[in-house]
Amino acid sequence: MKVLWVFAHPEQRSLNAAVRDEGLRILHEFGHETRESDLYAMGFNPVVGPGDFEQPLPERLRVGAEQERGYTQQTLSEDIRAEQEKVAWADALVVHFPLWWFGPPAILKGWFDRVFVQGFAFGIKGADGRTRRYGDGGLAGKRALLITSVGARESSFGPRGIHGHIDEVLFPVLHGTFFYSGISPLAPLVLYGADRLTETGYREFADDLCKRLGALDSERPLPYRPEHGPDYDEGLVLRPELAPGETGLGVHYRR
Amino acid sequence: MKVLWVFAHPEQRSLNAAVRDEGLRILHEFGHETRESDLYAMGFNPVVGPGDFEQPLPERLRVGAEQERGYTQQTLSEDIRAEQEKVAWADALVVHFPLWWFGPPAILKGWFDRVFVQGFAFGIKGADGRTRRYGDGGLAGKRALLITSVGARESSFGPRGIHGHIDEVLFPVLHGTFFYSGISPLAPLVLYGADRLTETGYREFADDLCKRLGALDSERPLPYRPEHGPDYDEGLVLRPELAPGETGLGVHYRR
Repeated sequence: MKVLWVFAHPEQRSLNAAVRDEGLRILHEFGHETRESDLYAMGFNPVVGPGDFEQPLPERLRVGAEQERGYTQQTLSEDIRAEQEKVAWADALVVHFPLWWFGPPAILKGWFDRVFVQGFAFGIKGADGRTRRYGDGGLAGKRALLITSVGARESSFGPRGIHGHIDEVLFPVLHGTFFYSGISPLAPLVLYGADRLTETGYREFADDLCKRLGALDSERPLPYRPEHGPDYDEGLVLRPELAPGETGLGVHYRR
Repeated sequence: MKVLWVFAHPEQRSLNAAVRDEGLRILHEFGHETRESDLYAMGFNPVVGPGDFEQPLPERLRVGAEQERGYTQQTLSEDIRAEQEKVAWADALVVHFPLWWFGPPAILKGWFDRVFVQGFAFGIKGADGRTRRYGDGGLAGKRALLITSVGARESSFGPRGIHGHIDEVLFPVLHGTFFYSGISPLAPLVLYGADRLTETGYREFADDLCKRLGALDSERPLPYRPEHGPDYDEGLVLRPELAPGETGLGVHYRR
């Protein structure tokens, strides 16, 4: 497979950088081709703004419309086009970051904001005239593994843990970004207790990493419900006979 | 009250900018004092990095530790200190942004990453020796109203809507950032269908805005469960007799 590793950490001597190095080594051993977007090393600009566009802009910037026009006319700025080319090349993305304020660091959030634009990642109509979304989209056929590190213990990110279940805390990325664009999201790989990791703990995590990367092309993705199927009604609400009486993010899994 | 309005939109002629102008006008009418952090207008840098620190750095940057040291020694960069001073000044924050990829634009995510540092927003011990967190913390006593706009219809962000219930999609900000730091989060104010808003729709939203800002000092916050109380066990897991058998982000509300 062709794997793009997107990495967002400011320190090349960090635990996360060691995990990234180990991950790339494992991928090569499994015979995969890799490329990397080390966002800090690249000095990636994460702020959507007028500089994203080489086309003449109207007096009032409508971000979504200009992103789509720029993508179609190939007038997005060179740094954005370079990232889109890498994403288009990849069969799988590994998106790897420390969890800051329960989400990606700004440099990575802005990578999605600027690179995953309308016309490229989403907003594309299918043969039936409907917009392809959630389980289908501009990036359909790709898969993604999210890797993150947290200081907290695993119990506190469990199904009833105080921080919220990690899969639901990451819903905006796993479901709202990957799945929305047609990418099949795998279960996230989380390094818990990162601030006080022992050598043994690191080796255990590295073993998990090896297993997960070894199954990158075969693992079953998270079973989110596709938009175009029998599960949602015209208002995009889950039909009452599915997960009857339940609410919350968990209803969007097929169990 | 003293209200800090944090605004993250690249276009001063946007719908969101109009909402911000209207909101500030309303706050003045109600007799509140206001300040603003218009992150795009300020050219705010959202990327955590070595430039955040005026103190000499060790060979390996440990972000959390250096942020705390910088805060304590007053050696964080001037732009960060200026924002912390505004936050400290405020009784209430209004945090206002268009929802991009189901979260804040990078420029705002990085405002939290760089400004809400350990020692200032969290990581502070109480008299009992325990770290103050979730319902208590460095920013205890303040409240926050999140205002956001989405293109989608309201039904699709409802309790069973395909995008996920808006309160749960915003959990990383409402619970993981505001409540974590001791800020009382109010229910978010969401402008739906922003891409095709009619004049009537705008007036209705402006009425809601006026009501919500009028109740800024009196509205009951979201009833999240505090960390230091009877609800969680030593592993920070919700005790089994509360919301028995349930999982998901919804269990963290007291109902």
